Amino acid sequence: MKMKTYKYPKIEEAKELLRRPEIESQVIREKVLSIINSVKTNGDKALHEFSQQFDSVRLNKLVITETEFDGLEKKISDKLESAINIARANIFKFHKAQEVDSQKIEIDEGITCWRKSVPIEKVGLYIPGGTSPLFSTLLMLGIPATIAGCREIVICTPPQKDGKIADSILYVAQLLGINKIFKVGGAQAIAAMAFGTETIPKVDKIFGPGNQWVTTAKQIINSFGVAIDMPAGPSEVLVIADDSANPKFVASDLLSQAEHGADSQVVLLSTSEQLIESVISEIDNFKRQLSRIEIVEKSLQKSAMILVRNLNEAIDISNQYAPEHLILSVENSEILAENVINAGSVFLGNYSPESAGDYASGTNHTLPTNGFASAYSGVSLYSFMKKITFQKLTKNGLSKIASAVETMAVTEGLDAHKLAVTIRSEKNRD
Amino acid sequence: MKMKTYKYPKIEEAKELLRRPEIESQVIREKVLSIINSVKTNGDKALHEFSQQFDSVRLNKLVITETEFDGLEKKISDKLESAINIARANIFKFHKAQEVDSQKIEIDEGITCWRKSVPIEKVGLYIPGGTSPLFSTLLMLGIPATIAGCREIVICTPPQKDGKIADSILYVAQLLGINKIFKVGGAQAIAAMAFGTETIPKVDKIFGPGNQWVTTAKQIINSFGVAIDMPAGPSEVLVIADDSANPKFVASDLLSQAEHGADSQVVLLSTSEQLIESVISEIDNFKRQLSRIEIVEKSLQKSAMILVRNLNEAIDISNQYAPEHLILSVENSEILAENVINAGSVFLGNYSPESAGDYASGTNHTLPTNGFASAYSGVSLYSFMKKITFQKLTKNGLSKIASAVETMAVTEGLDAHKLAVTIRSEKNRD
Repeated sequence: MKMKTYKYPKIEEAKELLRRPEIESQVIREKVLSIINSVKTNGDKALHEFSQQFDSVRLNKLVITETEFDGLEKKISDKLESAINIARANIFKFHKAQEVDSQKIEIDEGITCWRKSVPIEKVGLYIPGGTSPLFSTLLMLGIPATIAGCREIVICTPPQKDGKIADSILYVAQLLGINKIFKVGGAQAIAAMAFGTETIPKVDKIFGPGNQWVTTAKQIINSFGVAIDMPAGPSEVLVIADDSANPKFVASDLLSQAEHGADSQVVLLSTSEQLIESVISEIDNFKRQLSRIEIVEKSLQKSAMILVRNLNEAIDISNQYAPEHLILSVENSEILAENVINAGSVFLGNYSPESAGDYASGTNHTLPTNGFASAYSGVSLYSFMKKITFQKLTKNGLSKIASAVETMAVTEGLDAHKLAVTIRSEKNRD
Repeated sequence: MKMKTYKYPKIEEAKELLRRPEIESQVIREKVLSIINSVKTNGDKALHEFSQQFDSVRLNKLVITETEFDGLEKKISDKLESAINIARANIFKFHKAQEVDSQKIEIDEGITCWRKSVPIEKVGLYIPGGTSPLFSTLLMLGIPATIAGCREIVICTPPQKDGKIADSILYVAQLLGINKIFKVGGAQAIAAMAFGTETIPKVDKIFGPGNQWVTTAKQIINSFGVAIDMPAGPSEVLVIADDSANPKFVASDLLSQAEHGADSQVVLLSTSEQLIESVISEIDNFKRQLSRIEIVEKSLQKSAMILVRNLNEAIDISNQYAPEHLILSVENSEILAENVINAGSVFLGNYSPESAGDYASGTNHTLPTNGFASAYSGVSLYSFMKKITFQKLTKNGLSKIASAVETMAVTEGLDAHKLAVTIRSEKNRD
């Protein structure tokens, strides 16, 4: 298979070379809208029907019962249990460290203002299931949700053909103390959490990745006013590598991304033509060992390898592209990292593969794709909280800004805004 | 005029009483979509046409020229200049204090992870103009944008009938060092900043309030992947008052909100029947003095005054409603404030009117309306920045999580994710 390689494009040319495919589909949008309306109108009944239609399963109950948690420890290998515990501890440590105390600011004598972080009360986590149950995503969303202190945490995940949920997902849920789990997938799950049904509670914010049906549904319910973690698109990695990079490492990083999905984007920028050639040959060697080879092939066909004049040029192209994952396999990775303006998560040096951050180094793997990294952050503790502003003015404090408020209010033509201050000043004079 | 009053409703009943009117309009949506497409296709030409059509003005240039800034100081009264300076200093102080240093977290020996705040490169500020140019909103958006260090700050504001922009807006822009100002309003301004035209740069995130055309346009371009500050709805205030409240103060606060727009919502919850009656009578007295009386009347017709059994009940109703502004005119306002879960901005005690926060106490006045306060925060310094995650692992650091990553990757069926770690471990053994 030929991978696309380019030599020394200009920055505007690189923009075209790395243009992401448009994935909007009016057909899917209309179908999703009809699913959403059906769930809004018919509640659980619609969910049962969609389960039969899409998951080929007839469910007695949508909710997971207590007995389904029985004996989970025995079903999970010691090795997996230990792996999950390491990941959990690291993710907990990184997200717990994000807590910031609210600090009262004395703007002037008698004028105190502050912001307080308050958990979002009800959050919904969508966890993809089926052939590949993403228990790692449950760790990434469930841990900050529990640190934040969200009062109600709801999980929706599609049932397997046997009507069950993967043990790994149940195990992680139990570990995190989340017990409201519903066997619902697809656009219907997003609709259920957005509007509520007889059994599934309405939530304030919905998190989690999914296929095009799920992400379209999230976008639609967001336009109805339900918050979502971030807009979604296919996953992507951009690797910047110089002579010091190990072609085997780089090849494995590009393949990690390529195996995510046929629409994943994989980009290599290098100052070394030799390295690009070696990486291509290593990819050829490795890919035969991979079980998801068909997906990998499709993704690689759309990927690009670009020879650049120097690392500054590479960073400019990267900032313009705004990759979800950025790997800096270069000698002075920390210095180069200073120039990163747009990226979701950055991996420095030869021993920081993307898969470390995907699973267990502690950082969150829910990140902005599709160029959204230019304006959006990845999921953090504060994705599960909002900040409320408070202010307390004394009589004297108000008097310090009274005239300013009056003047500005009058200039904007808002009499009652002025009145609210004036009436309190008259009282001051009592 | 009769204002609606209710006695001791149950919490579920209060939910119905305070239900916000649905404002979605399919007709407006379609018209806005057509404006957006027209700007996307025809750029500046479309903007000029819409200016003639909607603002009744034929513009030579869309961009403000340097000469339009000439002699501004003389056109602004000393009083307004001084008011703006006080407001600016306080807003600067409150938002500057929000800066947080990035802190490197050592997850384990050899695993270092951190988040860095980076300004969003290009931001667009929409400032409503016409009859009531909101220079205060420019202060609220421009100050955090400049503290954040956004490289390009663009203002769009509709031209007056004479083709000019209000002096107050130009003055504030000059004060903040923002010189890219375009005479474009409405949905076409949002489209121009979202996609770029020959003269207006494409931005990464769009901020600012507006009428239904503007907010619908923001919602639509957000679904195309351009970030926005927050979803919008009509402005609203909820006042909780006990016996200690001053009915004149409460009346003036309710009127401040009512004058914003005919669709503003104004709610009073009180433990005192006597207070409610006094407030109604004070509103009647005051409103004759107000210039925007027609708007006020319309808004008050939809407002509600509710007698509650105790302050806890009031807080429960308020948390359920999630008001944009919450005023606690009660004796122990700081204690009651502890129980606020959902609100945009909270004003404590008798001397903290909403208009203080609207203009000059330092807090931001761009806040979540329409119940969005349950999941969204108001605008802050960090609305103009994103956080990028970084991680650096040493050989030894990677070895600590290698087995965990391998096991989890295999369980999720992602071979190449495992490979990226394994290949680096083999190297370790060299």
